[in-house]
Amino acid sequence: MSKILNIAVAGLGTVGAGLLKLLAAETTVIQARTGATIRVVGINARDRHRDRGVDLSAYRWFDDPLAMARDESVDVVVELIGGADGIAYQIVETALQHGKHVVTANKALLARHGNQLAALAESKGLTIAYEAAVAGGIPAIKTLREGLAANEITEVYGILNGTCNYILTEMRQTGRAFDDVLADAQALGYAETDPSTDIDGIDAAHKLALLASVAFCHRLDFDGVRIKGIRDVAALDIAYAEELGYRIKLLGIARRLPDGGIEQRVEPCLVPRPAALAAVDGVFNAVVLKGSFVDSVMMVGRGAGAGPTASAVAADLIDLARDIRPPIFGVPVDRLSAAPGAATDSMPGAWYLRLMVLDKPGVLAEVAATLRDHQISMETVMQRARNPGEAVPLIITTHHASAAAMTAALAKITKIASVVERPSSMPITSF
Amino acid sequence: MSKILNIAVAGLGTVGAGLLKLLAAETTVIQARTGATIRVVGINARDRHRDRGVDLSAYRWFDDPLAMARDESVDVVVELIGGADGIAYQIVETALQHGKHVVTANKALLARHGNQLAALAESKGLTIAYEAAVAGGIPAIKTLREGLAANEITEVYGILNGTCNYILTEMRQTGRAFDDVLADAQALGYAETDPSTDIDGIDAAHKLALLASVAFCHRLDFDGVRIKGIRDVAALDIAYAEELGYRIKLLGIARRLPDGGIEQRVEPCLVPRPAALAAVDGVFNAVVLKGSFVDSVMMVGRGAGAGPTASAVAADLIDLARDIRPPIFGVPVDRLSAAPGAATDSMPGAWYLRLMVLDKPGVLAEVAATLRDHQISMETVMQRARNPGEAVPLIITTHHASAAAMTAALAKITKIASVVERPSSMPITSF
Repeated sequence: MSKILNIAVAGLGTVGAGLLKLLAAETTVIQARTGATIRVVGINARDRHRDRGVDLSAYRWFDDPLAMARDESVDVVVELIGGADGIAYQIVETALQHGKHVVTANKALLARHGNQLAALAESKGLTIAYEAAVAGGIPAIKTLREGLAANEITEVYGILNGTCNYILTEMRQTGRAFDDVLADAQALGYAETDPSTDIDGIDAAHKLALLASVAFCHRLDFDGVRIKGIRDVAALDIAYAEELGYRIKLLGIARRLPDGGIEQRVEPCLVPRPAALAAVDGVFNAVVLKGSFVDSVMMVGRGAGAGPTASAVAADLIDLARDIRPPIFGVPVDRLSAAPGAATDSMPGAWYLRLMVLDKPGVLAEVAATLRDHQISMETVMQRARNPGEAVPLIITTHHASAAAMTAALAKITKIASVVERPSSMPITSF
Repeated sequence: MSKILNIAVAGLGTVGAGLLKLLAAETTVIQARTGATIRVVGINARDRHRDRGVDLSAYRWFDDPLAMARDESVDVVVELIGGADGIAYQIVETALQHGKHVVTANKALLARHGNQLAALAESKGLTIAYEAAVAGGIPAIKTLREGLAANEITEVYGILNGTCNYILTEMRQTGRAFDDVLADAQALGYAETDPSTDIDGIDAAHKLALLASVAFCHRLDFDGVRIKGIRDVAALDIAYAEELGYRIKLLGIARRLPDGGIEQRVEPCLVPRPAALAAVDGVFNAVVLKGSFVDSVMMVGRGAGAGPTASAVAADLIDLARDIRPPIFGVPVDRLSAAPGAATDSMPGAWYLRLMVLDKPGVLAEVAATLRDHQISMETVMQRARNPGEAVPLIITTHHASAAAMTAALAKITKIASVVERPSSMPITSF
């Protein structure tokens, strides 16, 4: 006698269609591994007749996703529509209210409403599984919540957005400008028509907030993430970084500060070229977890796409079929500590600065004096181009300084008459 | 009211002492994550009085590990003694016979007796957990058995032995010979006094056999692993590999062949320098899993040491406290397919050859003709050194050829009069 897990799938885009294909293709292996059958008892999408490369005739179609989320035949609702609010939210809430587990790939929804939805789920003895919401096919949530569960986590970081990593990789390999590469990425389907969620770092921040909550056992705090995207990364910065021995990556970093607070930030960083993260190119994602006993574990894989994301959704379904249900954020919601809030400072580190300065004597002296006044010492200075009287790039790397000191110094530097644009600054990581 | 998991620890070497330290240090976080307390109700080791840097006075000491494995107070026996047979085997068997779950880091034991012990465990409704047996702190078994459970696995490979990876890394970085670096590794404690289990590839093969069984749902088949260690890797090979754009790594590789069979092998391979695996140096391990939907996931971390191994043992204990108990080898033992046996051939690939030949005209022509006769075509040929009438290295890389063709060709080449040593040959990987 085989156990049956009855699921309903809301949303049949790339991932939803990929999930139906996976469940059809891997019935045997899933049966062998779980002793259970995962049966699709309902599907719903906006458009019933669009060609998705998968035959929908075998499945019961629901016009109303909320009716599907309430339907008696359903054990688990799989939400693959996306969006922080609107119908995705309603489906998840309805499913939980009607006693159904939820599996979702929706990081925006969880980053915004995860605390409340998890509390609702736990009050009903249900779970919300979301492996697919973070780093696609990489089992980052499982590794954090189970594989490294015996560790106090000290730091979680990684490359969490494939679109940004693709754009930065292309910029480096071709020397082309951001706008140009973005347009190509949009044409190739690697970036959305409205790319802001990706390139402004919001998507990476959603994922980081989820990782941080599980890592540090605190309430989800998306608003506490400091976010800077990649719009202002210039071809010039990538070339200079390369020359200095670094690669620019959009990183999500969450860590415990010496004062016990938690820092969460997403921003472009210079990563030393020999570091493993520097080699993670294109649409790949990477997650690094540091723990009190395990030291570090790095995972690299595809962060998006039908197959990898469907693999993660199906893994959550298999966990449900096996009754594997650790607490949603690693510890029960009512035992999570308070949201950490935005960290006022961050771990001191080295910095990369690019100033556009008028090519005339005395500018460097003035900049250097300002940095000195803020106790920031320089490691390298480069001013290659000559263009007397015109703007040229002045590249500076510094020794360790706090973000607060750097912000204060940059405010002063911006006011120097010969500094003609807003300075560009990025942290240099030690990993 | 908190659940209590009562454990007994047999073996207080590096890992056993590390586990006691971890359980003492991380009581709070483990409690928060599991709602359970892991309580050590018995310990045993050969020598009660050796200083292990951990206070044993709080624990109940057993002189007889078998009495401990039978003791009524114990829910789980943690076996950290090691060795395929002898007392480790007896402890595990006794524990299972008396209704206790087993957690172990003992790959030799499982590689040899895993099928039988798993059958015994499953017949009693018990589990044997062994995350720590494979790749130390990396949760490779959990990722394969749960995280990627929705995939048919096509290939598992990686760097599974930190001692070998340390030796090969040192050889590359210093140019020193194998024996010399091995002696240093022994002095530093990175290699055992009798290093053969590590350097002859046995330890990596134990781990590979476990990974392959879970990946491909077949009965453990350690005897089916083709094994070649690193004793014959010369400083010369490492230097030439570097020049050709490769690094030499001892890899374990298990994959499904086109005929449906399974190939399992451990051997030194040339890995392209831009590949992620090439950057995994020193005592680090890496495991790459390829699946039908997820594409590939790579994990990198510490493959040995007190902290990482204790982290994996404790993760298994936490799983038990949470009642997370998927089948020992991913599917129940009685549903595993038959042991695949030793593959007669392997996936065709490129090869590196080093021949020591007398430096006189005509040798290369003879070697080239022999390769041609076996349908093997050369990609590069290097004969740098000149030493007329004496032996010089002749380095050849080939296009794709099967292992059978290469073996046959090498048998002929060995008989060429001007070839003065047994040729050295290593596969060149495409990853």
